[in-house]
Amino acid sequence: MDIGFIGLGAMGLPMARNLHKAGLLVGVWNRTRSQAEALAGETGVAVAADPGELARRCDVVFTCVSADEDLAAVIDALLPGLSAGSTVVDTSTVSQAAARDAARRLAGVGADFLDAPMSGGVEGARQGTLAMMVGGDAGVLERVRPALDALSGRIAHMGPVGAGQAAKAVNQVMVAGINQAVSEALAFAEALGLPMDRVIETTSAGAAGNWFLSHRGATMTSGHFEPGFKVALHRKDLTICRDMAQAYGVSLPMVEMTLVHYRRLCDAGYGDEDISALFREKQKLFKTGSK
Amino acid sequence: MDIGFIGLGAMGLPMARNLHKAGLLVGVWNRTRSQAEALAGETGVAVAADPGELARRCDVVFTCVSADEDLAAVIDALLPGLSAGSTVVDTSTVSQAAARDAARRLAGVGADFLDAPMSGGVEGARQGTLAMMVGGDAGVLERVRPALDALSGRIAHMGPVGAGQAAKAVNQVMVAGINQAVSEALAFAEALGLPMDRVIETTSAGAAGNWFLSHRGATMTSGHFEPGFKVALHRKDLTICRDMAQAYGVSLPMVEMTLVHYRRLCDAGYGDEDISALFREKQKLFKTGSK
Repeated sequence: MDIGFIGLGAMGLPMARNLHKAGLLVGVWNRTRSQAEALAGETGVAVAADPGELARRCDVVFTCVSADEDLAAVIDALLPGLSAGSTVVDTSTVSQAAARDAARRLAGVGADFLDAPMSGGVEGARQGTLAMMVGGDAGVLERVRPALDALSGRIAHMGPVGAGQAAKAVNQVMVAGINQAVSEALAFAEALGLPMDRVIETTSAGAAGNWFLSHRGATMTSGHFEPGFKVALHRKDLTICRDMAQAYGVSLPMVEMTLVHYRRLCDAGYGDEDISALFREKQKLFKTGSK
Repeated sequence: MDIGFIGLGAMGLPMARNLHKAGLLVGVWNRTRSQAEALAGETGVAVAADPGELARRCDVVFTCVSADEDLAAVIDALLPGLSAGSTVVDTSTVSQAAARDAARRLAGVGADFLDAPMSGGVEGARQGTLAMMVGGDAGVLERVRPALDALSGRIAHMGPVGAGQAAKAVNQVMVAGINQAVSEALAFAEALGLPMDRVIETTSAGAAGNWFLSHRGATMTSGHFEPGFKVALHRKDLTICRDMAQAYGVSLPMVEMTLVHYRRLCDAGYGDEDISALFREKQKLFKTGSK
C-alpha cells in the first residue's frame, strides 16, 4: 500500500512520520512547500509537485487540513490524479456536509472516501496512539486499516460517511466542557492559595481525573499556552457543533459558553495559543472579584 | 494503632472494611445501628454504644458523614471520650469553617484533627485507591499515614486544617464541569444516532478521556443512575463551593449552571440518583428541540 500525505501541520507532521516508520509513506504535499521539503530531507520520501501528482503515484492519500474550504480545495486538486480504487482518508475535523461532499465527488471517479478525524493531541499524533472515529464503507476501512494502525491506538467505525465527523463533534463538545471544568477549578485553587502541583496530582488520581488535567494542568497554571490545540481551531470545531445542534433546534450550553470565552481570547490575540489559555478567562473572574 | 470508624455509608462502609483488612479497625459506630451490626457480624469488630465510648478505646477515629451539622454532632458526641494524643480524621466533605471549628474544639482537650476528604467514588473506596486531600499538622499526618495508606493510592498534604476541604472543593468543581461535559456530549451523540458504546470507548481513548466517562458513560446512556455519588450530596458540596467563591466576590459559571440542573433533578425526585442523572437534563434539550 503506497501512501501519500497532505497537510503537514502540528498533527499531520507526526502522523506522516509514523506512516514513514511503518514503511508506507511514498510522498507528501503541503501548501507551504518548505514543510514538505523538511520532511523529505528527513525521510527520503518524494515531494509531489501538486496533489494530483501525489494521487497518481499513491493507493491512499491522507489529508489533514484545517477547515471545510481547505478540504474542498484539496479534493479539487486531487481529483485529476484519482481513479477507481484510489482512496482518500481525511483526518481533518470538518462538517459532515464537507465530508459527504468530498465522498460524492470522489465517487464520480470511482474513488473511495473515509472521514477519519482523530483525538489525542499532538502527543497522541507523535506516539501513534490517536483515537480515530471513522465514517464510510466498512470494507474500505478494512483495506486501509494497516495504515490507520500506524497512527491510532483505537479505531472505531461509526457509520456511513459523515459519522466519523459526527463522533468527532461529540468529542469536541466534551473537550470544551472538560477545558471549562479544569480551568475553572484550577483558577479557583489558585485563588485559594493551594499548592497547585499537589492539587493537580491528587485530583488527577480521583473521580475528577482526565487527560486534559494530566497533560495541560501543569503548563496552564504556570502560564504556558504553547499549542497543543489552538483556540482558533477548537472555536472553528465548536461552530460546527453549534450548527449541528441547531439542526435539532438545540443550543448546547457548554458549547455556547466556550464560544463566548474563545471569542474573547481570539479578540485579545490569544487565538494561536493552546485551548488551555481558557485559564486566562477564569483567572480574570478572581482578579476582578471584590474580595 | 487502634482505629474506630463512624459513618458507614456508601463511602464509609468500604473504607472501614479496608481498615479492617489492614488489621487496624477495632470498633465502629453508626447513626443507624443495624449498619454497624452488619459490619461487626462480618468482621468481628466491636459496635460502640456511642461515639464517646469508641473514642475512649481508639487512638484514631475516622469520621465519614454528610454535612457540616453531622460533623458538629459527631464531634459533640466524641469529645467526652477524647484525650491528649487522640486523633480524629474526618473524611467527609464539609466547609472549611466546619473543619476549623472541629479542630478548635478538639484542641481544647489536646486532641488532633485532620480534614482528609477524598475522591475516587465508591469504586476507589472499595479498592483502597482513593485520592486523599489532607489539611492539618504534617506530623499528625505522618502518625496516621499507615491508616491512610489502607484507604488511599495518593495522599497529599494541602496545608493547615481546612486546606484539605479547600482542595476537595476544587475537586468538586471539576467533577461538576466534567459531568456537564460528558452528559452534554453523550446526549448530543444519542441525538445524532451514533453507536454509543463506540463513542464512549473512542472518546475515552483520546484528549476527552476522563474517569467519569469511563466509569459512568455506559450506565448513564443506558438509563441507569444508581449511586455512585448522589445528586443531593454533590449539590450540597457545590453550595459550599459557591459560598467559598462568593468570599472572593466571584460566581463560578460551571458551579452555578450545575446547581440549576441539580435543583431541577432534586425537584423531580432524582436527588438520590447518581450525579450522572444530569444526562436526563441534557436529553431534555433534544426532546424539546424543534427538529
